[in-house]
Amino acid sequence: MDAKLINPFINATTTVLKTMAFVTPKAGKPFLKKEDTAKGDVTGIIGLTGAANGTIAVSFDEGSILTIVSNMFGEEMKELNHEVADAVGELTNMISGQARKELDEAGRRFEAAIPSVISGKGHVITHYTDGPKIAIPFTCEGGQFIIEVCLER
Amino acid sequence: MDAKLINPFINATTTVLKTMAFVTPKAGKPFLKKEDTAKGDVTGIIGLTGAANGTIAVSFDEGSILTIVSNMFGEEMKELNHEVADAVGELTNMISGQARKELDEAGRRFEAAIPSVISGKGHVITHYTDGPKIAIPFTCEGGQFIIEVCLER
Repeated sequence: MDAKLINPFINATTTVLKTMAFVTPKAGKPFLKKEDTAKGDVTGIIGLTGAANGTIAVSFDEGSILTIVSNMFGEEMKELNHEVADAVGELTNMISGQARKELDEAGRRFEAAIPSVISGKGHVITHYTDGPKIAIPFTCEGGQFIIEVCLER
Repeated sequence: MDAKLINPFINATTTVLKTMAFVTPKAGKPFLKKEDTAKGDVTGIIGLTGAANGTIAVSFDEGSILTIVSNMFGEEMKELNHEVADAVGELTNMISGQARKELDEAGRRFEAAIPSVISGKGHVITHYTDGPKIAIPFTCEGGQFIIEVCLER
């Protein structure tokens, strides 16, 4: 796996969550994803084109996203409602934007589509690409989340 | 709503399903989407960039997609399994490609990201854009499905 491709997403996630939610996520070892199950209850997803076609998906479990959004809002959130989905859309956009900025500086320019958020306990996401599907697991206060980076070529 | 934008998606959906699954879907009246709930059990989603940033999502109910995929495979499919998700990924890609071809011929060039498929009874999808979210409901043998076209301007 190409660290030059993975590190911008780790850096972006860490920076965005630190800045927006005062949370310091800890990145685990990235791995090539074989199975399709997104380990999460709320997923933000955004398409990419440009240097390669791809998709970024950020899947949070309930514990991690409630902690993150409670910190963002300065108010305890207890359920996965519309406000939480909105916050995931915003975070996905910011993580994508920050990662694209770092990739651009390294000479790989990506355009981003608009983010969508899927809410639903135990949903399964499959990405259709022949390219590698790289997963980066994170732990943070309250739970865990995972970023999937799928790029063709 | 701009028919020049909507018709390519109606045409593409009809052509692809006729060709691939021998199904003749009937398009209902397109409407501007206010609420977020995707009316479906399996959703194919693909990001767009270029003439505008956007997303296309095709949400099938169980009845419609089982009929469509059974016809595609020439074998009765009884449950929403991995093969059904794969078929939805393929159909999403083809509908997007066909619609982009027609839009391109009309002078609006779009690039497509890679498709993802979400499986899960009663999942909810929210698209984050200030632009209009246009929904086109379809009925076909077995059930119904809906296409959402979200484009920024």
